[in-house]
Amino acid sequence: MDDREIVKKIAAIIGEKNTEDDCAVIPFGDRYLVASTDMLHEKTDFPRGITDRQIGWMSVAVTLSDIASTGAQPVSVLLAAGLDSPLRIEDIITGAKECCDKYGAKLSGGDVDSHSELTIVTTGIGVVKPENYISRKGAAPGEIVCVCGNLGHAQKGLLGDPRYFKDLCEPQPKVSEGIYLGESGISSMMDISDGLAISLYDLSELNGCGFEIERDLIPLSDGIDFDTAFYGGGDFGLLYTCKESTFEEKKLPGFKIGKVVFSCGVRVNGTETAKKGYSHSWN
Amino acid sequence: MDDREIVKKIAAIIGEKNTEDDCAVIPFGDRYLVASTDMLHEKTDFPRGITDRQIGWMSVAVTLSDIASTGAQPVSVLLAAGLDSPLRIEDIITGAKECCDKYGAKLSGGDVDSHSELTIVTTGIGVVKPENYISRKGAAPGEIVCVCGNLGHAQKGLLGDPRYFKDLCEPQPKVSEGIYLGESGISSMMDISDGLAISLYDLSELNGCGFEIERDLIPLSDGIDFDTAFYGGGDFGLLYTCKESTFEEKKLPGFKIGKVVFSCGVRVNGTETAKKGYSHSWN
Repeated sequence: MDDREIVKKIAAIIGEKNTEDDCAVIPFGDRYLVASTDMLHEKTDFPRGITDRQIGWMSVAVTLSDIASTGAQPVSVLLAAGLDSPLRIEDIITGAKECCDKYGAKLSGGDVDSHSELTIVTTGIGVVKPENYISRKGAAPGEIVCVCGNLGHAQKGLLGDPRYFKDLCEPQPKVSEGIYLGESGISSMMDISDGLAISLYDLSELNGCGFEIERDLIPLSDGIDFDTAFYGGGDFGLLYTCKESTFEEKKLPGFKIGKVVFSCGVRVNGTETAKKGYSHSWN
Repeated sequence: MDDREIVKKIAAIIGEKNTEDDCAVIPFGDRYLVASTDMLHEKTDFPRGITDRQIGWMSVAVTLSDIASTGAQPVSVLLAAGLDSPLRIEDIITGAKECCDKYGAKLSGGDVDSHSELTIVTTGIGVVKPENYISRKGAAPGEIVCVCGNLGHAQKGLLGDPRYFKDLCEPQPKVSEGIYLGESGISSMMDISDGLAISLYDLSELNGCGFEIERDLIPLSDGIDFDTAFYGGGDFGLLYTCKESTFEEKKLPGFKIGKVVFSCGVRVNGTETAKKGYSHSWN
């Protein structure tokens, strides 16, 4: 069983609409509140060599990325920490607050607890006008598909390239970009924390459409090959779809990587790609 | 170092106002949003013999209790689960949803992850009119101090009394009572999840006042002695202060247990009591 199968089980109980998106949506007055929660564990989620301050930063960044992917402005973050040692809390909270401060959110509180393995859960709350809210659903054939953010940096850092280690440990959520994309009338959006390829598959399934990706349009940073860029996770960029005219006229951030088509699945230069990326294994 | 010392370290970084209360408060239009997050672990927080469905229920109940203690109506709960086995998720989510449904909140989503020890973090969001929001601060000498809810049931259940095992595993947060207390103009409130005695000490420190408790006013359920009622944790009742006239006129829920006085500390029939209750030990 993988994460996505478990989500299906949960969807059967709480309703599919509550599991489709990165964030829960709560209509509130003339705004939508969006909320997202993420659990990170020392062994499975934090790379070796990361500092406690970076752990705090990263824990907040992953949640702000979910908020950003709806077009919302993050307003508040709560942090629950299961600590193997109480001495770690100061650096973790310091890093968490730095990330909140940078992106305009307030670190509003949380919970602490002792635990054998460091475990951090951040919950972010954001606000967006209903007309600017973007969900994962809405992509339509004829549109283009775009990515905003670096590709493969985190994966490369994880594989030991020192040039990209900071990108791995201090991901920069695309908050202002997400807000601008929401205001610009794009059709769907999600973050690519699990990797570009698997995110494209998620979007394909949910929208009942497919993607024709052009290999040459995937930008490769220095020393990063196509596979790392396309399948690597942890980069926290934004994947979105929109009309080509919108992309041009509004000078949307990021780059076009292909087209939305009727036929489901994800193809690169016409060849079906592997549905792989970051996913927990449960066996 | 105990939980309360760690909270002081966090307060130095994010500001004392952000750690004083059970909930974070986010002004939003003409309402306050309140939000709270709680982390629970299998070994330290869930009693032996509890079912997975009850684990889901309890995880939501602890967070709704924090929301209730501000006078707010819970609207949304997010649940992050670190699972030692994916097979547990259905029962946990079922119990979580039952608790949400009972108290008018929506189980809006969450996160799942594999983890060696079952760990659940629930985050609740509530809404309250600013004039009905109650914080831990506001108790004034001359007022009375009251408790709403059972005392010692959870502790007794934990000690093996089968009559109280359900109260331990399926705590009933005082949501409607909290809302009514908020509308009734009480002066301060908190929940007593860590136990009545330690909660009185928390309120004393924060308000710079003390409490004279009358031993005979502490209601004892069948088979429960004073110490269990006064020091036992896990009951999720509400502790609040108000004018005696308010208590009488508005027929507030619960019972008076003593008076708010100038001199700090907590005394039962004039004798200083131990500052003990539920708290994690970190040594």
